[in-house]
Amino acid sequence: MIVHMFVLGIDPGLSRCGYGVIQRKDGKEIALAAGVIETPSEMETPSRLTLLRDEVRQLIVEYKPDVVAIERVLFQHNAATAISVGQAIGIVMTEGISAGCQVIEFSPNEVKQSVAGHGGANKQEMEKMVRMLLGIQTPLEPVDAADALALALCFLARQRVEV
Amino acid sequence: MIVHMFVLGIDPGLSRCGYGVIQRKDGKEIALAAGVIETPSEMETPSRLTLLRDEVRQLIVEYKPDVVAIERVLFQHNAATAISVGQAIGIVMTEGISAGCQVIEFSPNEVKQSVAGHGGANKQEMEKMVRMLLGIQTPLEPVDAADALALALCFLARQRVEV
Repeated sequence: MIVHMFVLGIDPGLSRCGYGVIQRKDGKEIALAAGVIETPSEMETPSRLTLLRDEVRQLIVEYKPDVVAIERVLFQHNAATAISVGQAIGIVMTEGISAGCQVIEFSPNEVKQSVAGHGGANKQEMEKMVRMLLGIQTPLEPVDAADALALALCFLARQRVEV
Repeated sequence: MIVHMFVLGIDPGLSRCGYGVIQRKDGKEIALAAGVIETPSEMETPSRLTLLRDEVRQLIVEYKPDVVAIERVLFQHNAATAISVGQAIGIVMTEGISAGCQVIEFSPNEVKQSVAGHGGANKQEMEKMVRMLLGIQTPLEPVDAADALALALCFLARQRVEV
């Protein structure tokens, strides 16, 4: 029986990549870390991706997540943005697999359903729910960090339902 | 003075990723390898990306390219395709940087200009030019392999002009 579980949530992006680590211990969820990995736009893309990869790898080494939960990106304004998000997703996925993690994607709708109970939840509502579920008093900033924690919570909530 | 140079051209994709290795030795270009890395669509994306990464890494270990030339993808039919291509590009870029290669992108137009002399060249024309420039008698199949060789040729042609 697993009593401990660590989940790394990732809100993927090349400029800004949100991350959040949640530990479930004896049925209780605790946020261990949340923040944003930023890569400078004046840097060349290959170097930015390498920087992102190193930061993600560092998070995985530090928190040893069992699961990496990534947002499934469905729509983008243009091809350039979609390709850039895809690049970030690819990096996170291969880092997760290489470290032996389960890597799973959730659509924004699935995350909203799991965390707020309905697919129409807005950013503010989601941030409040994340804080409530994790017992966090202070506002979660930036929003990318809250989104990433929501992804990790989504995995844990769905697992609870399935088990 | 560099007399040897190895360039790995990559036509990126998750389902099919074309590759071509060209050696320039004493001003002459020779194709050392060309082909396609395919990943099975029935496999989960994270595993497909890991497979692609391992194959790209293997090519880099085997041919030790100085340069990795990747197609800059500008348009895609839909966000899902763009994200999937972006994932493949991200993998190739970080593998190249990690191995100490120069990683550079060329637009389809730049490749056509360099290899066929005009940006309007079609697939057939490009394949013929690639074969002519590399002294290859037999048709290059699949087309992804020809595209990848064209990318490597593009890098070498532009370097020649700049030097």
